[in-house]
Amino acid sequence: MHNDLVAALDIGGTKIAGALVDGSGRILVRAQRPTPAREDGETVMRAVQAVLGELAASPLWLHTTAVGIGSAGPVDASAGTVSPVNIPGWRGFPLVDQVRAAVGGLPVELVGDGVAITAAEHWQGAARGYDDALCMVVSTGVGGGLVLGGKLHPGPTGNAGHIGHISVDLDGDLCPCGGRGCVERIASGPNIARRAVETGWRPGPDGDTSAAAVAAAATAGDPVAVASFERAAQALAAGIAATATLVEIHIAVIGGGVAGAGDVLFTPLRRALRDYATLSFVQDLVVAPARTGTDAGLLGAAAAASPALRGETAASLNG
Amino acid sequence: MHNDLVAALDIGGTKIAGALVDGSGRILVRAQRPTPAREDGETVMRAVQAVLGELAASPLWLHTTAVGIGSAGPVDASAGTVSPVNIPGWRGFPLVDQVRAAVGGLPVELVGDGVAITAAEHWQGAARGYDDALCMVVSTGVGGGLVLGGKLHPGPTGNAGHIGHISVDLDGDLCPCGGRGCVERIASGPNIARRAVETGWRPGPDGDTSAAAVAAAATAGDPVAVASFERAAQALAAGIAATATLVEIHIAVIGGGVAGAGDVLFTPLRRALRDYATLSFVQDLVVAPARTGTDAGLLGAAAAASPALRGETAASLNG
Repeated sequence: MHNDLVAALDIGGTKIAGALVDGSGRILVRAQRPTPAREDGETVMRAVQAVLGELAASPLWLHTTAVGIGSAGPVDASAGTVSPVNIPGWRGFPLVDQVRAAVGGLPVELVGDGVAITAAEHWQGAARGYDDALCMVVSTGVGGGLVLGGKLHPGPTGNAGHIGHISVDLDGDLCPCGGRGCVERIASGPNIARRAVETGWRPGPDGDTSAAAVAAAATAGDPVAVASFERAAQALAAGIAATATLVEIHIAVIGGGVAGAGDVLFTPLRRALRDYATLSFVQDLVVAPARTGTDAGLLGAAAAASPALRGETAASLNG
Repeated sequence: MHNDLVAALDIGGTKIAGALVDGSGRILVRAQRPTPAREDGETVMRAVQAVLGELAASPLWLHTTAVGIGSAGPVDASAGTVSPVNIPGWRGFPLVDQVRAAVGGLPVELVGDGVAITAAEHWQGAARGYDDALCMVVSTGVGGGLVLGGKLHPGPTGNAGHIGHISVDLDGDLCPCGGRGCVERIASGPNIARRAVETGWRPGPDGDTSAAAVAAAATAGDPVAVASFERAAQALAAGIAATATLVEIHIAVIGGGVAGAGDVLFTPLRRALRDYATLSFVQDLVVAPARTGTDAGLLGAAAAASPALRGETAASLNG
C-alpha cells in the first residue's frame, strides 16, 4: 500500500494540475499546464495529455495504480463525460475514455470538483472524523460536496453537493444557470464585489474592485463592504441550513478565496445560521474554514480514485 | 420470512395508528386511538400502550419480530426520543424504551414520519424501483424523506428529508420553526388557504376556507385561488430542485391532502420546476403523486423496522 500511488488531475478553467499522490496524501510529483479554455476540445485534451506525460516521465509512475480526476462541472461520472461551463470546447467530452487510453488502461475515476474538494477535506482537512459533512468552495463560483454516513456522496453522476445552484430567494435575480436567487448569485466573490459597487462602495486609488478589495474594506470597517459580505453570509447560511435540514450534516467546511476574508464572512455567517438552522437536529452545526488549501483538488481527486480512501470514515483511514 | 410480521406504529397529533404488517406489505390487524395531544406525556403513552395491547391480543402477535415507529417530529433516533411539535407533553420523551418495555423487549426502530412515508413509497408506491428519491407530504405541514443509492437515508437522528423547513425565500415571512421563507410557510394547506383569503378569495355559502375549498375554486378557474396554488407550487419546485441539486434524486413523490388537489398543484409545479431545476443532472427529474395513501405511515414504519425491507433497492425487495 505504501508503494501504491494515485495520479490525480485537477481540471479547471484556468489550469490543469496533475500530481502523483501517496497513501498518506503526500504529493510526490507535480505537473501543470494552463487550460486553453477558448480552444477546441482536442487542444484542451492535449494539455491534459501533456500533464499526464510529465507525470509518466517520473520513475515513480511505475507505482501508479489508478487515476483520479476532479473536474469543473457539470460532469457525468456514469457516462465518463464532462461539460465544464468555462471550457466551451468540452460538451459531453469523453474525458474518462481519453485519459484511460493515455495511461494504458489504468482504472480512472471522475468526480466533480466540489466532490473532489470534499474528499480532500474529509481525508486530510477540517471534515476529518466527521461522518456527515458539507464542504464548500466560495470563490469565483460556489461549489460543494457531501459526506454522508462516513462516505463521500458523489451521487449517480458525480455532481451531488452543488450548493451554489440551489435557490434561497425564489423571486431573486436570474442566475447564469437559468435559475433564480441561487446561493452563487448572491455569495460568490464577483457578486459580493458587484453588490458593494452597486450600493456605493468605491475602490481605493488602485481601482481594485475585486472581492478581496471589498474584504479588505470590510475588515477596515467600511459599512457598505460589511453589508455586502453580510448579505453573502445570509445566503450561505440559508443554503447550509437547507443542506443540514435535508441530509443531516454536523459540519460545514468553507474554503476558496472568499472564505479567505475570514471574520468578515464567518462572523455574520455563524450569526445568520442561527436564523435558518432552527430545528433541533441542526442547531449544533459547526462551521469551519477549509484546511487543505490549494492542493485540495489534487488530494481529493486522488482520494476519489482510491477505494481504500474514498468511502471510508476518516477514523478508519487513519488506522 | 412469510410468517414474520412487524408491528407498526404511526404517531401523529390527531391519531395513533397501529398494525401488524407482513413481508408483502399487507396489513393483517389494525388498532387506533385518538392522540390525547393536550394531555401530559404519560397519558399520551397510555394511548400508545392501548394500541399495542390491542395488536398483542391478536393470535398473529406470536409472529411479530420487531416494532417500527414513525412519529411526528422532531425525533431523535439515536437517543430513542421524540419531541413532536404538536404533542407538547412529549419533549425528549423516551418512546423507544417505553415501547420496548411494552412489547417484552422486541427490537424497536424509530424514524420521523416523513422518513416513514418515504420508506412506504419506496417499498410499495411511486418511488419503487428508484434508487434516488425524495418523497413528500404536503398537508397541514410539509414533510419528507430521502432514498439515496437505493437505501433509505434517515440520517443520524432519523430526521433527514425535512424539506418543509428549508428556506426558499431568505427575506420571507417568519415560520413557526424560527426560520424565514420555509417551504412549509408558503406551500402547506393552511398557508395556501390563508394566502387565498388575504388576496381576495371568498368562500362559498358554506363558509369553507380550507385548502380543499381553495383547490375546488382553483379547479373551477377562480384566478385568486389558482394564484395561491401557483405560489405554493413555486415554493415546492424551488425546494425540490434544491434537493435534487444537493443529492441527485430522479423522482419527487408528493402525497398528502394538498397533493390531492391534483392538476391545480401538479401542473404549475412541473412548470416551475423547469425554472429551478436547471443543471444538466437534474433536468429529467420526475414528479409523481404518492400511491400508498392513508396507510403510508404504517407501511413505512414497518419497512423502517425490517432490515430486509429497509436499505434494499426496490428490485431486490421484490425478489
